[in-house]
Amino acid sequence: MSQRDDRPHQAMGPGAEFDTIRLLMARWGDLAVDIGDDAAVLAPVGDRRIVVSTDACIEGAHFRRRWLSPFEIGVRAAAAAISDIAAMGARADAILLALVVPDDWCGALVDIADGIAHVVRASSARIVGGNLSRGDVLGITTTVIGSTTRPISRRGARPGDVLVVTGTLGGPGSAVAAWEAGQSPESWARGRFASPVPRLVEGAALADAGAHAMLDLSDGLVADARHLAAASGVRLIIDAARIPVGDGIGRDAALRSGEEYELLAALAPDAAASLLRSWRERFRVPLTMIGRVGEADPSGTVVVNGLTDGAAIENSGTARVEFISGHDHFSQ
Amino acid sequence: MSQRDDRPHQAMGPGAEFDTIRLLMARWGDLAVDIGDDAAVLAPVGDRRIVVSTDACIEGAHFRRRWLSPFEIGVRAAAAAISDIAAMGARADAILLALVVPDDWCGALVDIADGIAHVVRASSARIVGGNLSRGDVLGITTTVIGSTTRPISRRGARPGDVLVVTGTLGGPGSAVAAWEAGQSPESWARGRFASPVPRLVEGAALADAGAHAMLDLSDGLVADARHLAAASGVRLIIDAARIPVGDGIGRDAALRSGEEYELLAALAPDAAASLLRSWRERFRVPLTMIGRVGEADPSGTVVVNGLTDGAAIENSGTARVEFISGHDHFSQ
Repeated sequence: MSQRDDRPHQAMGPGAEFDTIRLLMARWGDLAVDIGDDAAVLAPVGDRRIVVSTDACIEGAHFRRRWLSPFEIGVRAAAAAISDIAAMGARADAILLALVVPDDWCGALVDIADGIAHVVRASSARIVGGNLSRGDVLGITTTVIGSTTRPISRRGARPGDVLVVTGTLGGPGSAVAAWEAGQSPESWARGRFASPVPRLVEGAALADAGAHAMLDLSDGLVADARHLAAASGVRLIIDAARIPVGDGIGRDAALRSGEEYELLAALAPDAAASLLRSWRERFRVPLTMIGRVGEADPSGTVVVNGLTDGAAIENSGTARVEFISGHDHFSQ
Repeated sequence: MSQRDDRPHQAMGPGAEFDTIRLLMARWGDLAVDIGDDAAVLAPVGDRRIVVSTDACIEGAHFRRRWLSPFEIGVRAAAAAISDIAAMGARADAILLALVVPDDWCGALVDIADGIAHVVRASSARIVGGNLSRGDVLGITTTVIGSTTRPISRRGARPGDVLVVTGTLGGPGSAVAAWEAGQSPESWARGRFASPVPRLVEGAALADAGAHAMLDLSDGLVADARHLAAASGVRLIIDAARIPVGDGIGRDAALRSGEEYELLAALAPDAAASLLRSWRERFRVPLTMIGRVGEADPSGTVVVNGLTDGAAIENSGTARVEFISGHDHFSQ
């Protein structure tokens, strides 16, 4: 633990949350080290490095009680936390749970625990500790410690790389939109929100294939691509037509659908081609090439080509996003 | 990380919180490993083992807003978490912060961050990551990763050991009692609640001196002694007259004062005597011998001798506490 990576902080994408994190980092100065990735890289263990990440799942902020069963609340909390370890290409080793449980949730705690167990059991991790408090609002804060010989940061994308994404997007955003409109989500979309699966084996395969950069989609494809672009100091070009979208879900909605817990990675073209050839035999989750890494760009622009619903440019914070309709720059 | 300590869970003291933890452990079966100590022991790093702990500090559950300044809230959150690492005799290496911040707390966040920094700066740890969410209730969940060549569990106390405690007790309990009675706490008591100091160097010294068992006082001396007694399977005999108590604070109140973040340790008599001789030159915080470890006792009894306010026996859960007035078994 004495040989920490004392690298400078990573550039992060725009948004009030990241503004607040930047404020905290400025305030803390050299007390905070290497903030900004999915998980913190700590130290070598033999030739393995330790990665740790913490993730909060709070009633009212991350879900509504009426949306999910207690079991599903547990699944989501654990999956979201473990997903950050998957996004480092690492193995999940150990989990700490800090639970804040209001009185009227106590009866549901066993079901929440079962949901957590359901996800942990499918990983190589074990629960090694935690903290339990009473409180007014249900909260599950999960810390995951993992390890890997080569953690995949979000800052290594290189000009010329290919962008790939796991899974089929749009479900969680569609489910939340339905609930917020007072409707019932489609079954597939609901399942994608209620029972996400951390992509541990897929993340390890992407790392083994030599991924230069990787992160998990928690804020939505465009927002997370911004993080990757800003961290890597490159321009990303995404072809909207190539994005794997669930049935009946708009492409624009899929671009913004958060809490997908799928992986976005940048690889050299040869490595990507080789991986894509063997992927179907190895994994049930699809892997799709959706774009490429353009030239170096310190501000980290994301260009989305081929949206049919009109051109738009968003410009805020460090990473710019351009939505360009009807023209596929990707095939250049 | 592949060589975890797959030891059985430790016995824990009584109380609804621990009943719930036991329920969770029964539910999780072998998914949960070695639960029950101040921090989880994970893996060797060279000859060092990693210890991790998570601790939640939630408005309403752990403090009232009117009691503390935002800076003090930050201090308490970080100190409570790091204290668990001190109680393992370990060095604090890395910290993850999961912050849940209501809108009306946003303006205070920088002061909270400064309070956290104040404590982290005094340790060898650095903040390596975290999570930030909006929510209805302020929450600071702190995960600390530390390391040591020899983690001190709470289960190693041996018959014949001497019990020592750091610091002067009763302040936090007295402060909370005053606040809850609508009064202002005494300055010393308030400071002990508002600005606890994790006993990192003292914990390391106790470990170096060969402590057999150690924990930090978060639930109160008697309650935490129960944990140590139950985990070690021994009887503990505490002499009330020896307990270091703050001015104007009753001995009975000091026994029950929680959130002290002082250390309680069991050492062989020779080791304790040697440490006590050199302690004053090395540390400003006092170290006091307050009792001894009696015979093996699977249920883990705690006997408190010499209380002047009458005999009492508490009997619940796994560890029994006997309060015996006017008679000093300790000097036997």
